[in-house]
Formats: sequence, C-alpha cells, structure tokens
Amino acid sequence: MKLLVKSFLIFLLLGTTAIAADPLASWNDTGPKKAIIEFVEQVTRETSPNFVSVFERIAVFDNDGTLWAEQPMYFQGLFALDRVKALAPQHPEWKTKEPFASLLRGDLKTAFAGGERAMMEVVMATHAGMSTVEFEKIVQDWLATAKHPKTHKPYTEMVYQPMLELLAYLRANGFKTFIVSGGGVEFMRPWTEKVYGIPPEQVVGSSIKTKFELREGKPVLMRLAQLNFIDDKVGKPIGINDHIGRRPIAAFGNSDGDLQMLQWTTAGTGARFALLVHHTDAEREWAYDRKSSVGRLDKALDEGKAKGWTIVDMKNDWKTVFQFEKK
Amino acid sequence: MKLLVKSFLIFLLLGTTAIAADPLASWNDTGPKKAIIEFVEQVTRETSPNFVSVFERIAVFDNDGTLWAEQPMYFQGLFALDRVKALAPQHPEWKTKEPFASLLRGDLKTAFAGGERAMMEVVMATHAGMSTVEFEKIVQDWLATAKHPKTHKPYTEMVYQPMLELLAYLRANGFKTFIVSGGGVEFMRPWTEKVYGIPPEQVVGSSIKTKFELREGKPVLMRLAQLNFIDDKVGKPIGINDHIGRRPIAAFGNSDGDLQMLQWTTAGTGARFALLVHHTDAEREWAYDRKSSVGRLDKALDEGKAKGWTIVDMKNDWKTVFQFEKK
Repeated sequence: MKLLVKSFLIFLLLGTTAIAADPLASWNDTGPKKAIIEFVEQVTRETSPNFVSVFERIAVFDNDGTLWAEQPMYFQGLFALDRVKALAPQHPEWKTKEPFASLLRGDLKTAFAGGERAMMEVVMATHAGMSTVEFEKIVQDWLATAKHPKTHKPYTEMVYQPMLELLAYLRANGFKTFIVSGGGVEFMRPWTEKVYGIPPEQVVGSSIKTKFELREGKPVLMRLAQLNFIDDKVGKPIGINDHIGRRPIAAFGNSDGDLQMLQWTTAGTGARFALLVHHTDAEREWAYDRKSSVGRLDKALDEGKAKGWTIVDMKNDWKTVFQFEKK
Repeated sequence: MKLLVKSFLIFLLLGTTAIAADPLASWNDTGPKKAIIEFVEQVTRETSPNFVSVFERIAVFDNDGTLWAEQPMYFQGLFALDRVKALAPQHPEWKTKEPFASLLRGDLKTAFAGGERAMMEVVMATHAGMSTVEFEKIVQDWLATAKHPKTHKPYTEMVYQPMLELLAYLRANGFKTFIVSGGGVEFMRPWTEKVYGIPPEQVVGSSIKTKFELREGKPVLMRLAQLNFIDDKVGKPIGINDHIGRRPIAAFGNSDGDLQMLQWTTAGTGARFALLVHHTDAEREWAYDRKSSVGRLDKALDEGKAKGWTIVDMKNDWKTVFQFEKK
C-alpha cells in the first residue's frame, strides 16, 4: 500500500509539473493540439455535458506510423530479415529455396514477388517454432543491437515525441491507453511498457497460434506456424472488442488499416475523438500517403476530411518529430 | 485530474478501513487465510527477497465455481435454456427439432444425449446472430430478472463473499485482478465491473467470432455462429498469454479446467500462489469434486495436494459463503 501511495504522489507531482510546463510542448499551436486539449477538457470536466467517467476513458493507438516510424518498411519486417540472416547457417536449404535465397542475396523485390504467401513464409520461419519466452528474448536481443538503416538509431528511439507527450497527457487525465496494431502482439509487448508506458496487457495485435506443452514437467507455450488473428482493417474493431470489451472514446491512427478502428470509435455516443497522422515531412521524417505500399493513407484521408477528424500535418503541426531530436 | 485524486483518496480510505477491520473477515483463521496473507506480505514488502513490482502483480481468477456458484449447472447454460424458451415463438421448427424439442419439454437429458454437438447448437442458437451491443442488452435484461432455481436469488448475488474480499484485498495491495474463465467473455463483461470490480478489459473468456459490418453507414460487430476460442484447460494459459501477455503470480480456480492455468502461474520464478476452492459444503452450498459433470475437481486436486497448493475446504475455511448471507 505504501508503495502505491508513493507512486501515486510522484505521478501527481510529475503530472502537475508537466501540465504547468505544457504537456504537449512538441506540438505547434495549430489545430490538432487545440482539438486534443478541447476534447480532453470536455470529457474530464465534471460539469461538462460530455463528461466521461474515468472507467470509460479508453484511448487506442495504432503503432506503426502512429507511435513509431514505419519506413523504409515496417520495423517488424526488418526484424524478420535480420532473423533470416541469423538463422541461415541452420538452414542450408535456404540457399536455393525462395523466398529465402533472394532475401539472403539482399534482393527483396524478387523475394516478395511471391506476394503474401512469400511474406507469410518468412514470418513463420522467423516467428514460430520457439516458446513464447524464447521469442521474447529474441526480440529483446535484436532491439538491443539493431539500428535503423537511415538514422542509425535504435528502433525504440524512432518514436514520435509528440505522441509520447500525448500518451502521457491522456494518462494524466485518467485515460487508459492501448495499442491496437497490425504488428505482432509478441513483437511489441517486450518493449511497449518501457518505451510508451503501455503495459503488455494493454497491447492488442496480430498473433500466431500457440500450443501448451509440458517440457519435462514444466509448462511452455510453443509458437506455431499458424495464423491466429490479423489485427488490421476490420480486424481492429474485432480485436478491440475481443481484448478491451468496451468502445474507445478516442482513436489515433495513420493509415487505411486504421479506418475501421476510427469508424468504430466515433460511432459511439457522446464526445468522440479520431486523429490521423499524415506523413508530410520528407525532410525530418518521410512524406507518403495514397500510393505508399507501407502505411497507405487514402480512403481514411478522404473519410477523415469528410467527417471532420483531426488530421495531423506532421510538417506543420509537430515542433519535434523523433524523441532523439529532443535535447 | 481532480476526480482521479478524489477517487484515489476514497479508495485509500476504504482500503485502510477495510484492512483495519480484517480485509478477509469471511475467512476462518485456518490455513488458506494465513497462506494468502503470507504470500501478499512476501511480494509487497519492499525489503522482502520475493518482492514483486506493482506492474507484475497479476492475479487470475476462474469464474464458475471460483467467484460465483456453478450448480445445478453453469449459469450461462441456464441463460441459454431461458433464451431457447424466449426465442421459441420465432422458431416453430424447434417443436420437432432436437435438441430444442426436448429442451422445450424440459427434458435436458434427452436434449443433451447428442453431447457436445447438441450443446454447441444451443449455444449458437442463443448467442449468435445479433450484434455485440444487442447481445450485451440481452444478458443485462436476463440478469435483471432471472433467479437461481434453488436459492431464488439473482445470479449476480450467488457470488462468494470470501472471494469478493480476496479480490479487494489483492487490489488494495497493488494487484491487477483478471478473470480467466471458460465462460463466454461477452456473457461476463456486462456485469463483472459492478459485481467484482473487474473491468471488461480484464476479463478473458471463451468467444465466438464476430464480423465487422456497416449497417446504413454505422459500424456493427455481428456475432457469428462460429467458435473463436475455448478458454478452458490448455486454453487458459493460451488466453492469459494472448490477453495479458505476462505470467500471473497468483491463480485461483476450482476445477480440472483450471489445472493448466495453475501450472503456468506457478512455473514462473519467485514467489507464486495457487489456490483451489474445494466445494465441500452440501449444506450452505454444494459438495462435489471428482465425479461431478460440472466443475470436476480430480486431477487438479491430486496435483494441488502433491505440489502444496492452497486448497480451500469451503465448509471449514469459509465463515460466510454467499454474499447475500452477509447481514
């Protein structure tokens, strides 16, 4: 109990200080920042007609392209490529077997000419066949050493400073923050608590099936080369319903993969908030939208504009982009 | 923020008062009560070698037979039977179609002679074909009027007073409490927060598949007559891994369906706690174990004894059984 009191007091102090010092300091004073603050004030002020009890303050965040970057490709894809290289000595047959042979030669284009089937083969070869505990260690070890090909920063520093501030601001206002990502749930959980302050139990993602086994009397969960759930597009509201079991009042995304999550969130009664991060900053980050193969933002951009969702123009609305830029 | 502070202060006050007045007042001063308190002190005392950070204090509870009763049959089964009766006018074909015809005549034995397949037909006929929002209302409406056949109490009052105290005691000590039940997750979520103080996002259960649809532009999740996940036996560690993503340090169950959950929980490092509720009180509740078709406790009882898990002898260890007995 004592510890709890202490942590809570510290949290209050930090919260108060942060608010005094502008909790959204990396956001320019443009539309999105104002819309966020207005929404939060609306749902937290007890006398507001749109007041929402603390139990119902659920906010969901996409991860790739919303909380961290996703170029030149989804970081989990880069993880898979590194794993193929690391595992190649144990798989001499990969030298002549596609898509592995092309991958090992660095020819991604030929490797993925096989489309989704080829992609799935790589995912299963690198994500299945070990226990959940073993996989967690593989992810942690990779993150400890791997560097982004362009910035040469660790991937866990390729997170957006404005979004970190937003997460903290929402939590300081009684929100429970969840990740709802197309990425693998067990690829995210080892680091989301440290990086975003989001505990494993508040991470929803895609998954493969696992199997309970007793290994010399000790239970393990083995990761099987079999899809369980794709937490993308129509899968996002399904994942939200399955894991959270109540409708969020705020949703944050950046691509067409988030469209149904934003539709589902805004279809509830009372005040609702939907935000799309539009990648418009070729200099500090990347500029892409309707024609990108990664994080395509096309239908959701049209629908967001039509429905008055908040659209972040990264170039104009963010003072700082990456956490590592902050002095 | 103000509200949060207020709720926290109220929670502290309540917590402190409860502790002063014996937080486990409905437990006799026998072994299980002592074991619970000893475990909680071990993991919460900062100087203890078994201290566990507040983030890792995850406790999982089975529901049927652990938090509420499960006789003469699982309450969700009684819900399904009531739904068959309610829906019968819309299904004239049920008069001659098994298992519905027998059910409507009150002949459960013939109805379920078809085993699991017959059971599944009843589940799907009563749990699928509507939206998630509609199903939630059906459950709430049923709970508001339905009465237990023996005690004539609402089902949500058939909860065990000692377990309510245990939930509150753990939470007052920084634990996050989860339900991990073979029951349907959407059958539980509408009432677990009110009855147990466990919010929907901390309820893991069995589920059927849902489908995202736009109905006149408004998104709905339709419940499909297709199994998604069975959260029982080996499914419990899988469900825990999928939803919580970290290993609990304490697990509470009452049947062989909980065995793997207790194995999984106790296989972690550091202090671990496993408890089985043994239904030994034919007078105040029911007495059943190895041969019961509902909540069978056989293998888990042997393994629990062999491994020194805490086994609650309901008759001797509980001062009060049901919440409604408490004056």
